[in-house]
Parts: sequence; C-alpha cells; structure tokens
Amino acid sequence: MLFELKEIPGGITAVSGFKAAGVAAGIKKTKKDVALVFSEYPAKAAAVYTKNKVKAAPLLVNIQNLTEGEARAIVVNSGNANACTGEQGLKDAWEMVALTARLLGLKSHQVIVASTGVIGVNLPMDRVRQGIKSCVERLSEHGGTDAAEAIMTTDTYPKEYAVAAELGGKKVVVGGMAKGSGMINPNMATMLGFLATDVNISKKMLDLALAQVVNETFNMITVDGDTSTNDMVAVLATGTANNPVIEEMNDDYEKFVALLKHVAAYLAREIARDGEGATKLLTIRVTNAYTLHDARQAALAVANSNLVKTAFFGEDANWGRIFTAVGYSGAEFDPGKVDIWLESNAGKEQVLRKGTGLAFDEDRAAAILAEKEITVWIDLNVGDKDATAWTCDFSYDYVKINADYRT
Amino acid sequence: MLFELKEIPGGITAVSGFKAAGVAAGIKKTKKDVALVFSEYPAKAAAVYTKNKVKAAPLLVNIQNLTEGEARAIVVNSGNANACTGEQGLKDAWEMVALTARLLGLKSHQVIVASTGVIGVNLPMDRVRQGIKSCVERLSEHGGTDAAEAIMTTDTYPKEYAVAAELGGKKVVVGGMAKGSGMINPNMATMLGFLATDVNISKKMLDLALAQVVNETFNMITVDGDTSTNDMVAVLATGTANNPVIEEMNDDYEKFVALLKHVAAYLAREIARDGEGATKLLTIRVTNAYTLHDARQAALAVANSNLVKTAFFGEDANWGRIFTAVGYSGAEFDPGKVDIWLESNAGKEQVLRKGTGLAFDEDRAAAILAEKEITVWIDLNVGDKDATAWTCDFSYDYVKINADYRT
Repeated sequence: MLFELKEIPGGITAVSGFKAAGVAAGIKKTKKDVALVFSEYPAKAAAVYTKNKVKAAPLLVNIQNLTEGEARAIVVNSGNANACTGEQGLKDAWEMVALTARLLGLKSHQVIVASTGVIGVNLPMDRVRQGIKSCVERLSEHGGTDAAEAIMTTDTYPKEYAVAAELGGKKVVVGGMAKGSGMINPNMATMLGFLATDVNISKKMLDLALAQVVNETFNMITVDGDTSTNDMVAVLATGTANNPVIEEMNDDYEKFVALLKHVAAYLAREIARDGEGATKLLTIRVTNAYTLHDARQAALAVANSNLVKTAFFGEDANWGRIFTAVGYSGAEFDPGKVDIWLESNAGKEQVLRKGTGLAFDEDRAAAILAEKEITVWIDLNVGDKDATAWTCDFSYDYVKINADYRT
Repeated sequence: MLFELKEIPGGITAVSGFKAAGVAAGIKKTKKDVALVFSEYPAKAAAVYTKNKVKAAPLLVNIQNLTEGEARAIVVNSGNANACTGEQGLKDAWEMVALTARLLGLKSHQVIVASTGVIGVNLPMDRVRQGIKSCVERLSEHGGTDAAEAIMTTDTYPKEYAVAAELGGKKVVVGGMAKGSGMINPNMATMLGFLATDVNISKKMLDLALAQVVNETFNMITVDGDTSTNDMVAVLATGTANNPVIEEMNDDYEKFVALLKHVAAYLAREIARDGEGATKLLTIRVTNAYTLHDARQAALAVANSNLVKTAFFGEDANWGRIFTAVGYSGAEFDPGKVDIWLESNAGKEQVLRKGTGLAFDEDRAAAILAEKEITVWIDLNVGDKDATAWTCDFSYDYVKINADYRT
C-alpha cells in the first residue's frame, strides 16, 4: 500500500494527549532509570509478551492485570529486571502498578508495568517509589526522549520515532519508543517496545494489528539469539483522531497496520543497529521461498549465525557461512537453485549462483562490506514468499560487554 | 553398566590391523592436510552425516558410494571443504575415492571420503593427489597421531583416544580421532569423527550403536550453534577380536555401546574444550526432566547461549542467563521448581532454588568459576530424565578467529 506519511519529532509524546518523563532514581549508578508514559485520554491497549517460560514479575502482573483491554499509563524501570525474584518480585511489580495508579488517579488495570536489567535481584523499592513520584511531577508533552532514555540498558542511544499520515479523512499520528541491545531474539525479541496512536480502532482490531506487526518487525530482529524473560511490546490507541472507528479488516485497517509497521520496523532496525558491540546493521532478505515460514526461518538462521556475524565484522565476503545457515535453518529449499547477493551503498555483487560459488570481484566485495549498512539477499528461487530479518555484526565488544555485565 | 577399561595409546591405530598417515600436501600453507586410515582387514562400516540441507560433495559421494556397508579406507583433506563447488566438486570427491581405492587395491565402495575447511573453492586436485600418494607410502601402525593432525582446521591440538576392555571373553579395542573447533552444533556437530574397533558385530547392530552413541556425544556438543555442511562420523569394525558376533541387543551389545560411547564422549569433550577461542570446558547437566527430549533441549539451549558463554569467559556467576536459556529452550518444566548449581574442582555453590535467586557467596562462586572445567547442574525437579551437553566459553578470540578466517 502506497500512501504519504511524514516523520515528526516527539517519539511517543508526538501523539496528542500523551505525556512522558524519565528520571534517574538511583537504581542504576547515575543514568535515568525510571520512565513513565501517561495518556490524558482513555485508550485501548494491546500487548504481547516473551515466549520464554521464565517470565519476569512485571509480565506476570500485566497478564493478570490488563483484563479490561485499556490502559492510560506505562511505568518502566531499567537497571533491574525484577525476574526470578520470587514472591517479593511479584509484590514489588504490583506496588509499581498501584502507586502509579494512585498518583495519576487511575484504576490499577489501566497501568502497564515493565522492568529491564539484571536478573535475580530484588528491586530497590525506595528508589523505584521515588522515581515514580518524580516522573509524575515531571510529566511533559515533550518528555518522550527522557522516557526513551530511562528505559535503556546497554543501548548506546535512545530509540524513538513518530509519523503523521491521513487515515479516514483525519490526520493521525503513531509514535513509539523501544530499547534493546542484548538478549535480542524473536518471540519477543528481548526488548521493550511501547507504541501510541490517536487512531480510533476497536480493541479486537488493535490486538490483531499488533500481533501482525510484531511478527514482521520486532520478531524479525536478533542480536544474540537469546530470548529474555522480560520482553514486551504494547500499544495504546486513544481514538482522539476521530477517524471512523476501525472495526473490521478494511482499507483503513490495512493503512493503520502499514503505519504501525512502519514505526515498529524503524524501532526494530534501530535495536539491531545498536546491538551490543555492533558496528554494522545487516538486513537479511530472503525471497521466493515456498512458504512465509520457510522465508522467516531462513532469514533468522542467517541473522542468528555467529559465524556470519563475525565474518561481517571482519568485512569478509564469506557467503559459505550464509549458505550453510540457510541449510540448517529448517527451511525447505533446493540447494542447487539458491542465488546470493551482497549489497550496500557501495554496490551489489552476486557471490553464489545456483548453489555454486562465483569467482566474484574481491575488491568490489570489500568495498560493499566496508559500509555500515549491508543487505544480504538470498533468493531461494522455488516459491513466491519473502521475509526480512535484521541483525548486527558480532564484534570483540559484544564479548567485552557481556563478559562482565553483572559486575 | 560398570566394567573395566584401560586407556591405551595409538588413537585410531591402536586397533589391530589399522594403519594411518598424515602429510602436508600444500592445500594449507605448511601444515598437514591429507590424512589416510587403512584397515588390513575387511570391516563393517556405519556413518552418520550432517542434517544441513546443503551437503558438501564428499558427503554426497559417501551417501551414494557406501552401499555395501563395508569400508577399509578413510581419506580426508583439510584446508578446503569441497562444499558448494558444483559438478567439479563432485567429480573431485569421486576422484579422491577412486585414487585411494586404486593405490590400496580396494573397491571404490570400500573408501570413505571427507573434507573440511573453506567453503566454495574447488580442491587443488594436483596437491590432493600427491597427498594421497604420500599417505599411501607412509601408512604406519603408529600413524594415528599424524592422521589426527592432518584433519585439523582451527583445532589447536589433535584429538585421539583409544581404550581396551574385555568383551565376550576377548580383549577388544576401540580407538578414534576427531576434529572440530568452529561451526560446531548438534546434528552432526560440525565435526569429523572416525572410530575403529576390532569388535565382531553385525552391520545392523553397528548402525544402531553408532546412531545411539552419536546422539549422546557428538550431537551434544556445541561451540557456536552453526551446523556445518561437512559433518560426519564413521565407524569401522573388523571383527578380528573374535568375540561371539553381536547380532542382537544383548549384554555384549550394551557393553560395546558403552565402550564406543566412552571413546566418542572423550573426543566430543575435547572438541568442546578446544572450541575456537575457548578458555574453559563447560559441562551442562540437566536432571529430572519430563522427557529425554526436554533434558536435551534444555542442556543444548544453555550450551548454545552466547550470553551464558560470555559470562563464563568473564567468570561471572550469571545464573539469570542460564535460567533464561532453559526458559526459551522449548523444554517443558515448572520455573518454580528449578534448582541450579555451579561446580568445579574448587567447590559447589547453589545459585537458584525453586526458581528464585539465592544470595550466594560471591567469593566462593568466583573461585569455582576461575577453574578451567566447570559444570552447570540444572535440576528441573519434575521427572526422571537426564542429559548432558558440552560447550566452551566465548572469548574475544572466537571473534578474532572468525572475523577473518577466509583470508
């Protein structure tokens, strides 16, 4: 679907009626570590959670708490994941919800809670309480960036994005923020993503739109193949744009999905680009697979391969590792039909034709791989289904960051 | 099953009638790169191959060629995988078989061929031919170590092992060699393993024994999660020990499986210990799972986690990452019942009890993690099935080795 959209500043607070704040409450040494997003208007809410069997306390609380399908606040702390923290952890997550609700005059079921950071240590609740209070005092319609900073862990920069477009004859806005960096893998790609919109849409269609978008964006990025205990993506929709309510799979629904996907894909790519130790953003494009599942499996296997990722760090056109990863991905294909290209702003070079390596121009390949954004295009040539995954290269710094994260 | 066995020197040539050689033929810059193993006696043969859909030429040749279930020679080159090399690659692999058969006076179907190294480059056949000829001239009953050296790629030391025991009233020997290092993951854990024995056993029971043993050894190691195009494990059994032939699942069969497993597990552990850039051997032991499949899934997920492996490199008791990997492994379990211990020669420390982190002694944990061999014991406490996986830690050197392997 082609339509006009305009990037606008403000991240999640670009959406009318949304305020946010982010403060340093001392959970981390000095950086911002408590974030709050607040909607002045009632909003429908949808959320998806990690597939990890070990779920952190805030996720368990949301699953129990968000029964009305509406929310008006999101409270997040970084620096501590509140995971594997037993009964006390659950109590603390509920208290974050209750305190936020009380200070904002909301019902408990209108508050989403999330945590990210170290696993297995109880939250310093005095600091968390103080952080929530400070956030409430500082809520601002320009607070999106502060909130995006406060949810960061090993991220090197805040990730936020917003677009405006026309839908149902009205101007609508979709904005959001995300954090990632390590423990990033599909099913909820170890990450937090919070989206907001003023689009008027039913709860049922909002659920559907989020599930569809997450599958093609946040679930298609990977940094290290590890799926965290704390991943979640949530979207709040206020309806204040006053477009005709979207209640079925019509053109307006498709347009909303496209907008939401545009924002989610932007944020997901930023998570991959800012993966721990990353020096390059890699886009893995698989085309002409038998099924969508095959295309996704193949793209994710390549995106998850340590050997592929270290080769790109070394700017080595090692297509053998790419083809090998496709081979063990589980995707159905015919090895004798596969073509592989490497592509960047510096050019495009075919390295495999019908399953056999080509004597390609090493200098041209080197120039392509010297770029910061590289696309690997794998054409399976057996069907008509495509998928794209995003990842980063694998550097010394990944090891450095993760060898002593806890200390 | 308890029985006495004795480690003996000689590797694959510890078995009576086996000769071997390894030479430097110039495929690699200076190191040995062509290996040959020859049995003076006829031998039953069984082999298992990579599950990767992209299979290298030598594997495709073996699958077509080893139709009689017997073999008397194994010819291997390192430095070039002969994978993704098209028609020429198949022709070259067949020529390695034919030349070896001719020089040794064997039938083609008695020769197993294998290659390991860079993908996508045609073999320098003049050098391969010369290497095979040199090997034939140098075949020796003390040649096991030379052959084990010649199959190495980024391995830092040759891997060979042999044991003697009593079976069916006779002294029997099982010996073998293996190579691994990178691209190591189950279903055939990116590796080559060649085993030999003088045990008298039917072809059918030899197939069964190899499949069972590989599942519990070579398929339970992982270095980087990448499954190569060239993996294979083969076993040759001459029967010259003259034990009553093993034709059914009796006590002698169980004893043979235990011996074969002992040798295979030794070699598999050495592959994990010598993983690219490894500084530590990690044993991941999962107990009391509902099913064997659950136990294996959980052990392999932990063994495959970059975050777990970098934490051990940093000697960081980051049990949160271990528990997280169990969580996304796909294994069925109850997070509230899981116990985790860290153990080495320096002691044992419980870090998780019933799914909740313990305030363990950091100094004692540091002492445990400073050792070169560490066991992670994960007790799921829900069933009675156990599995063990082996891996190594993940260091700067893994990245260094793989960032420019091809160049």
